[in-house]
Amino acid sequence: MIIRPKLNWLRMLFVWRGSVIPRIAPQLLILVVSSALVVCINVFSPGLLHDLTPVPFTLVGIALAIFLSFRNSVSYDRFWEGRRIWGSMLNDTRSLARQYMSVTDTDAQSQRHFVYTLIAFVYAVKAQLRGTVLTQEQLALLRPQLLPAVNRARFKPVLILSDAANQIGELHKADKLHPVLFTVLDRQLSLLNEDLGGCERLASTPVPFAYSLILHRTVYLYSFLLPFGLVDTVGMMTPLIVAFISYTFLAIDALAEELQEPFGLEPNDLPLDAMAATIEATLREMLGEDAYPPVPEPVNFVLT
Amino acid sequence: MIIRPKLNWLRMLFVWRGSVIPRIAPQLLILVVSSALVVCINVFSPGLLHDLTPVPFTLVGIALAIFLSFRNSVSYDRFWEGRRIWGSMLNDTRSLARQYMSVTDTDAQSQRHFVYTLIAFVYAVKAQLRGTVLTQEQLALLRPQLLPAVNRARFKPVLILSDAANQIGELHKADKLHPVLFTVLDRQLSLLNEDLGGCERLASTPVPFAYSLILHRTVYLYSFLLPFGLVDTVGMMTPLIVAFISYTFLAIDALAEELQEPFGLEPNDLPLDAMAATIEATLREMLGEDAYPPVPEPVNFVLT
Amino acid sequence: MIIRPKLNWLRMLFVWRGSVIPRIAPQLLILVVSSALVVCINVFSPGLLHDLTPVPFTLVGIALAIFLSFRNSVSYDRFWEGRRIWGSMLNDTRSLARQYMSVTDTDAQSQRHFVYTLIAFVYAVKAQLRGTVLTQEQLALLRPQLLPAVNRARFKPVLILSDAANQIGELHKADKLHPVLFTVLDRQLSLLNEDLGGCERLASTPVPFAYSLILHRTVYLYSFLLPFGLVDTVGMMTPLIVAFISYTFLAIDALAEELQEPFGLEPNDLPLDAMAATIEATLREMLGEDAYPPVPEPVNFVLT
Amino acid sequence: MIIRPKLNWLRMLFVWRGSVIPRIAPQLLILVVSSALVVCINVFSPGLLHDLTPVPFTLVGIALAIFLSFRNSVSYDRFWEGRRIWGSMLNDTRSLARQYMSVTDTDAQSQRHFVYTLIAFVYAVKAQLRGTVLTQEQLALLRPQLLPAVNRARFKPVLILSDAANQIGELHKADKLHPVLFTVLDRQLSLLNEDLGGCERLASTPVPFAYSLILHRTVYLYSFLLPFGLVDTVGMMTPLIVAFISYTFLAIDALAEELQEPFGLEPNDLPLDAMAATIEATLREMLGEDAYPPVPEPVNFVLT
Amino acid sequence: MIIRPKLNWLRMLFVWRGSVIPRIAPQLLILVVSSALVVCINVFSPGLLHDLTPVPFTLVGIALAIFLSFRNSVSYDRFWEGRRIWGSMLNDTRSLARQYMSVTDTDAQSQRHFVYTLIAFVYAVKAQLRGTVLTQEQLALLRPQLLPAVNRARFKPVLILSDAANQIGELHKADKLHPVLFTVLDRQLSLLNEDLGGCERLASTPVPFAYSLILHRTVYLYSFLLPFGLVDTVGMMTPLIVAFISYTFLAIDALAEELQEPFGLEPNDLPLDAMAATIEATLREMLGEDAYPPVPEPVNFVLT
Repeated sequence: MIIRPKLNWLRMLFVWRGSVIPRIAPQLLILVVSSALVVCINVFSPGLLHDLTPVPFTLVGIALAIFLSFRNSVSYDRFWEGRRIWGSMLNDTRSLARQYMSVTDTDAQSQRHFVYTLIAFVYAVKAQLRGTVLTQEQLALLRPQLLPAVNRARFKPVLILSDAANQIGELHKADKLHPVLFTVLDRQLSLLNEDLGGCERLASTPVPFAYSLILHRTVYLYSFLLPFGLVDTVGMMTPLIVAFISYTFLAIDALAEELQEPFGLEPNDLPLDAMAATIEATLREMLGEDAYPPVPEPVNFVLT
Repeated sequence: MIIRPKLNWLRMLFVWRGSVIPRIAPQLLILVVSSALVVCINVFSPGLLHDLTPVPFTLVGIALAIFLSFRNSVSYDRFWEGRRIWGSMLNDTRSLARQYMSVTDTDAQSQRHFVYTLIAFVYAVKAQLRGTVLTQEQLALLRPQLLPAVNRARFKPVLILSDAANQIGELHKADKLHPVLFTVLDRQLSLLNEDLGGCERLASTPVPFAYSLILHRTVYLYSFLLPFGLVDTVGMMTPLIVAFISYTFLAIDALAEELQEPFGLEPNDLPLDAMAATIEATLREMLGEDAYPPVPEPVNFVLT
Repeated sequence: MIIRPKLNWLRMLFVWRGSVIPRIAPQLLILVVSSALVVCINVFSPGLLHDLTPVPFTLVGIALAIFLSFRNSVSYDRFWEGRRIWGSMLNDTRSLARQYMSVTDTDAQSQRHFVYTLIAFVYAVKAQLRGTVLTQEQLALLRPQLLPAVNRARFKPVLILSDAANQIGELHKADKLHPVLFTVLDRQLSLLNEDLGGCERLASTPVPFAYSLILHRTVYLYSFLLPFGLVDTVGMMTPLIVAFISYTFLAIDALAEELQEPFGLEPNDLPLDAMAATIEATLREMLGEDAYPPVPEPVNFVLT
Repeated sequence: MIIRPKLNWLRMLFVWRGSVIPRIAPQLLILVVSSALVVCINVFSPGLLHDLTPVPFTLVGIALAIFLSFRNSVSYDRFWEGRRIWGSMLNDTRSLARQYMSVTDTDAQSQRHFVYTLIAFVYAVKAQLRGTVLTQEQLALLRPQLLPAVNRARFKPVLILSDAANQIGELHKADKLHPVLFTVLDRQLSLLNEDLGGCERLASTPVPFAYSLILHRTVYLYSFLLPFGLVDTVGMMTPLIVAFISYTFLAIDALAEELQEPFGLEPNDLPLDAMAATIEATLREMLGEDAYPPVPEPVNFVLT
Repeated sequence: MIIRPKLNWLRMLFVWRGSVIPRIAPQLLILVVSSALVVCINVFSPGLLHDLTPVPFTLVGIALAIFLSFRNSVSYDRFWEGRRIWGSMLNDTRSLARQYMSVTDTDAQSQRHFVYTLIAFVYAVKAQLRGTVLTQEQLALLRPQLLPAVNRARFKPVLILSDAANQIGELHKADKLHPVLFTVLDRQLSLLNEDLGGCERLASTPVPFAYSLILHRTVYLYSFLLPFGLVDTVGMMTPLIVAFISYTFLAIDALAEELQEPFGLEPNDLPLDAMAATIEATLREMLGEDAYPPVPEPVNFVLT
């Protein structure tokens, strides 16, 4: 995620970092060059290209803008739903930690075990979403007897959540937890389970491929045909105008592409590292610990 | 559902699989041929077609794009709601399995029975949505005494869910389950019942037929009249431009048609097979089983 | 609701049933005739109409399409919310029946009484929404002592729901129902109460009248002025083009009108009869009955 | 709220009541007059106005329609959210009355006291939203000892709800209400509290003023400049066309203005009087009373 | 937030306060000046600028309006979600106060302590969102033993909420609170925890930077190129028309910028001060206090 201090309107026009321009620069260059070529052809053999006018581009351009806008809204909704789920993860682990500590008759060590399991759960969700493995440090948060099963498991976060359930279940079976209070903690586990399921859903279900395809193709066809349509009307300005119009369409297309998979590592994706570290920090603070790790800061305005 | 690794912008222009082009190729061909005909007529008897101009197409084109976009958003919402419900089915069965195992005082066999009933429920929902029957393997997951009733029943998933309720009810009546904990499990059954009802709702209520009709007709009328409107302006380029503009409209129309019934077997529909198998796999992993069936992989990039 | 098997793209162009064309045919005819008149006037006294051009129609046309699209989305949301509420009614009666049967210590007769009361509730909601009365058969589902009050009552479904509450309350007062389980059943009654309230809300609150008015007027003014704007540009084709453009706008307007009151009896409205019958069938199946009434089938593709 | 029987398409074109035309008639008149002036100037000194063409109006017109549509959707959402909250108020008071009567061991008088308190709550919410005071009749619904505090209070509905809570709390403290059942009633109070908070939120937070401002200004600037842009193209028809285009924009702007504060007394606002009376009627019917006040009927098609 | 009495349509055209014009005045001025320059160049060396026409501006203008509208809707949704969360904060603290007072067997002092802790929580959330510190007066609301920890803490509101949990937990451990009632209070704490998390989510996750960037750039490029495109068509009117069109686009862009961070101090942001003071006032009124602080009034129509 790009985190930048507010810029005034003028400086904002010349920002490079955080822009999608680096991603679409090659295409824009090709477009400018081919537009220049079209201008040359038009100058040297004027009759050759006289057939195309801006009319078809008006017809398609508006439809394209409308469909692109729809797709952007889909991509953004996915981005925001991902954020919302990670926000719930923060809320739900906080509430669960609070409940475990205020409800149950447990000592500090058992509380630490429980809260550490929650932290490990969060890191396991992150690892599953980004296709990475849990670090030794993160595995050390788990109860030792769980490690072999976790290493073998295909759905690691589910197993870790089951262990949290077991820790509560043990209290329940030892009659240390009133059934009503048990249900409160269990409900919170179900909410964490839903957070996990929500992440899996977003990660495993892309925007229907055909959407991306249709719009991507129309955007590029449109951009590459545009100089033919404009050259008669705007002459030498064609490359500039083509670059301007294409920039808007290509950039919106590229950004939609980036936002629709919000758990990745591209600059505009969600900062899972920072969010997981924040959860760890706040849970450790609730335990009364001081030495929790620092929350990552943006590097070159990018928070991962 | 189409699952493809990310492609760069150039390769994406030439993808065939996962595109809706195969579905609209005949129509596009007819359009190109008829456009070519219009061009010929215009060349050989120039006066005949002089009446139509691009003006009416601008008037209609924008309205069409706006209405199509609305319909697409309706179709996509249905697709995504279907996905969301199947995501809930994963969450709710996982939570219910966790609760049954951590809450109740049951042996491994009773737990297996219960979880297998949930797996059978999921397959029964899938079978109902796709109009197929349960396989012998899937029926074997049920308690044997349930089979005759299930075979006779019109609403099979309801009956299977009732059996899960009975398994809990038996514990309750044998005083093995505190009433408060009973309500926790019962609530989860209600959630599964809602998932089922949500699927039935989507499957039994299509997008109002008149919408599809109005837009389908306007798209095709528009496309077939378009060459008459463009031939004076773009001449020989008419077939190309008509193909380009029609491609965008026809493809969006075809995709909306495909997505609005998300439980079908078309390439962009939801992968019910894979999702049901994932639920089976994760529930079996929770039981501690190793030999769960593999989750289906995409074949030719299509996951069913 | 129109239920039609999927048609291929070509047959879909010539469908009559389920289309809104019958509703707007007279207006379209008037438009074609008046366009033809305008063409005649233009041919015989060319100077008379030279003032209007397509320009104002472009200005208004786009605004009109945007506002119509907004109104359509409002109408569709009402349609879909109506459907969603009836879906909840199915879910909630099913869950309540399951709970009554698995939770309470009741005999078959008391269970039948309770479930029949739920079925009567559903029919009473339907009767209230459509302004009809309950049939003798439907009234026979109620406990006899309730009949006088129901006949007198202004809010009949509320009274029937209160009777279901009383049946549960009697168990509770006879100490046959643990208070915790009572709350589970009561919660489900509240959900049914919300379903009822949702239906009443939709039925009693139309789309703000001024919206319908503004858009209806603009659509018709636009259509009737259109020939004056087009006659200079498209000449003899004017009636055809006016019919084409007006068809799109009038049809979208007529459909929005139809969908915004989803509980009515027009072809695209919700099939309350079929949905209520489905609820009866599934609840009777849960009771173990075989002789439940058949679910209505579409007649001429229309399900009421 | 305007309640009119359905009109056919023709009569709908000439409806006056319920339209926003009365509100925008002066502006439309000014626009027509100034357009006529522009036409005169153009006829008598043709060179003077030749600079403006329809082009800039196309550029702005579409942007304006899009932004207006967004604002309308915001206004309508507020209207509908207001309606939804009042719908919840109906559901929640009905459920609470049902629960109080079926759950608690109370006599008819205590039940009447409780339900009357709920009715008074509803009227107090209405009075707060409309800035009126409670009538003597409405105050008489409260327990007498509450009157001094209610008269003094700044947040009257909160106080009345607290009294409902006290009536339940007294049962609880007298051990007449199982704690579990107490929570059921308390939960319903929290829902009523949310309904109140939702109303306060809508009433205290207008649509950001700058939105209204920007769009209002653009609409009027657009309308007043329009004759200059059209006079060259449509000549004598300018006043007619300007009236037509402006009508659409001004009417949509005026309606958005009206709907965004849904609790007011303008014709398209929510009928709080009728909704509160309906709640009173249904609650009194639940008490078994017959003599409840009539629900207001629309006067000149307007329900307040 | 701007709070203004309703203005009639005419006065609304000349309002300065609450408008975003002050923020975009410099840019508008530059645009007018540069447009005037373009007009001069065109008059004195007519051939120089003949290449650009309005055509590309139509192509881009519509796309721009559509994308801007999407971004506005995102910004407004953030604004409204912020408002909604603060509305929940009001509801949830009110409900929690009501429950604490009606459920628990506590004296007035303990009730005051508890409610004051809730008030402090609200101020702590506000302070965290606006990056300010708690005043001495606000800190004095806390139990004295909490102060050192609060001063040290990074997540202050979490700590304060934990103290509220502890106050309930103490009652629970002293057996003064039935476990079922404990869960009611705990659930409300979880809701407050979600309100806090929702605020943190909005505050820490801006709209993807690339969106703001793409649209900001396109708006400015568009505005600065516009005079070149219009000068041939509208001549001397260019500066006026450019100012008009740019005003609409720049103002919408500036407002979206302002609304997307709703917790700030700009004129259209949420009035956190007033909302927090309202919560304090209503909670103190529930305690029976009279001397609660006045709720802030708008200064120059701006409520902070």
